[in-house]
Amino acid sequence: MADEQLILIDFWASMFCMRPKIALAEKNITDYDCRVEDLMSDKKSSLLLDMNPVHKLIPVLIHHGKPICESLIIVEYIDEVWKGEIPFLPSDPYQKSQSKFWADYIDKKFYPASKTLWKTKESTERETAKSEFIENLKLLEEELGDKCYFGGDHFGFVDIALIPFYSWFHTYESCGNFSIEAECPKIIAWAKRCEQREAVKNSLPEMHKISELILGVRKQHLGIE
Amino acid sequence: MADEQLILIDFWASMFCMRPKIALAEKNITDYDCRVEDLMSDKKSSLLLDMNPVHKLIPVLIHHGKPICESLIIVEYIDEVWKGEIPFLPSDPYQKSQSKFWADYIDKKFYPASKTLWKTKESTERETAKSEFIENLKLLEEELGDKCYFGGDHFGFVDIALIPFYSWFHTYESCGNFSIEAECPKIIAWAKRCEQREAVKNSLPEMHKISELILGVRKQHLGIE
Repeated sequence: MADEQLILIDFWASMFCMRPKIALAEKNITDYDCRVEDLMSDKKSSLLLDMNPVHKLIPVLIHHGKPICESLIIVEYIDEVWKGEIPFLPSDPYQKSQSKFWADYIDKKFYPASKTLWKTKESTERETAKSEFIENLKLLEEELGDKCYFGGDHFGFVDIALIPFYSWFHTYESCGNFSIEAECPKIIAWAKRCEQREAVKNSLPEMHKISELILGVRKQHLGIE
Repeated sequence: MADEQLILIDFWASMFCMRPKIALAEKNITDYDCRVEDLMSDKKSSLLLDMNPVHKLIPVLIHHGKPICESLIIVEYIDEVWKGEIPFLPSDPYQKSQSKFWADYIDKKFYPASKTLWKTKESTERETAKSEFIENLKLLEEELGDKCYFGGDHFGFVDIALIPFYSWFHTYESCGNFSIEAECPKIIAWAKRCEQREAVKNSLPEMHKISELILGVRKQHLGIE
């Protein structure tokens, strides 16, 4: 039955699409249909336009024919529908509010700086974005502290929100000419720990594939050598 | 005991501060301390800086000495800590995801257009913001449909997210020279229904007080007559 299907409207390089993929894999849900959106063509599929008419953005998870949009909302949905032994979000309301705060911080602060870092043509603006990016990541590193994961001993909501950016780290480093490991060694150690999880390893694309794509986009569309 | 106190770092005209106030009132929590931030002075209190060092923004709810930031996260926290007969968020994961989607839409799309509408000096930009504002509100009206509240028969999460903007409607109308009721009659009918609730009525400031404040700010700080 079509309405029983689980479909993810996806694009391989999107960190926002990696989140539901990791979340589904962590819940051992592998039997779903990935509909890859061709973001390079400027043409959005009718499925995407039908399922996310408001934002027209990926990812969209379609479950029983009904769409769930916005990556963090999708991850929370997955956590509630496929309850596992250890949920992504803590049950304690205060701890939960803190996880949501940091995931929201990643979207509101960390992501915009990361985007400017690779998108801007202007070197002063790029340097500002680089400083912001590092500052934001250091704040996340501080929040991580000496914990194994942001979720403490358990891989959780904030880990799922942040780890997809790791596959973009090589791109940021190439565009900003800096070493993330030199700035935030604990974040790199955390990312390598996360990467040992099957669910993460199988959901993150190879770093060099992303930098190849993005350096190409910069050259072709933005005129940055 | 200080750490038993419930404190809200507040500013009376902020729609984001009205959200937790409504949420607390709906849960019959009236015994808390409102610490009013003087946003007009450009000086932030040490309490705010200590409690929200990341964003340095109001509102902050401090419960047992621990801060919860970001208004929608606070409303969800209130819903979980003070469970009432009817929670703000539906328990069904899909319905919950839809409530979160629309609340997020209000922050991501509706709020920015509303802000540009009153802040911009430039008339073309103001007209664009006005069109966006109306378009966004019409989409919310469509989502409301013939339901009593966004939460269906119950006043819920999306209602709490949107109703504070109603106290700004007179300001938007004055700045944009239009009638919201003519554009979105069902939204006005919904707002009037919400306003009949004690929790809402007691938490929303008088419309003309807000327009007086904002028209003053426009004149004094932005040079708009």
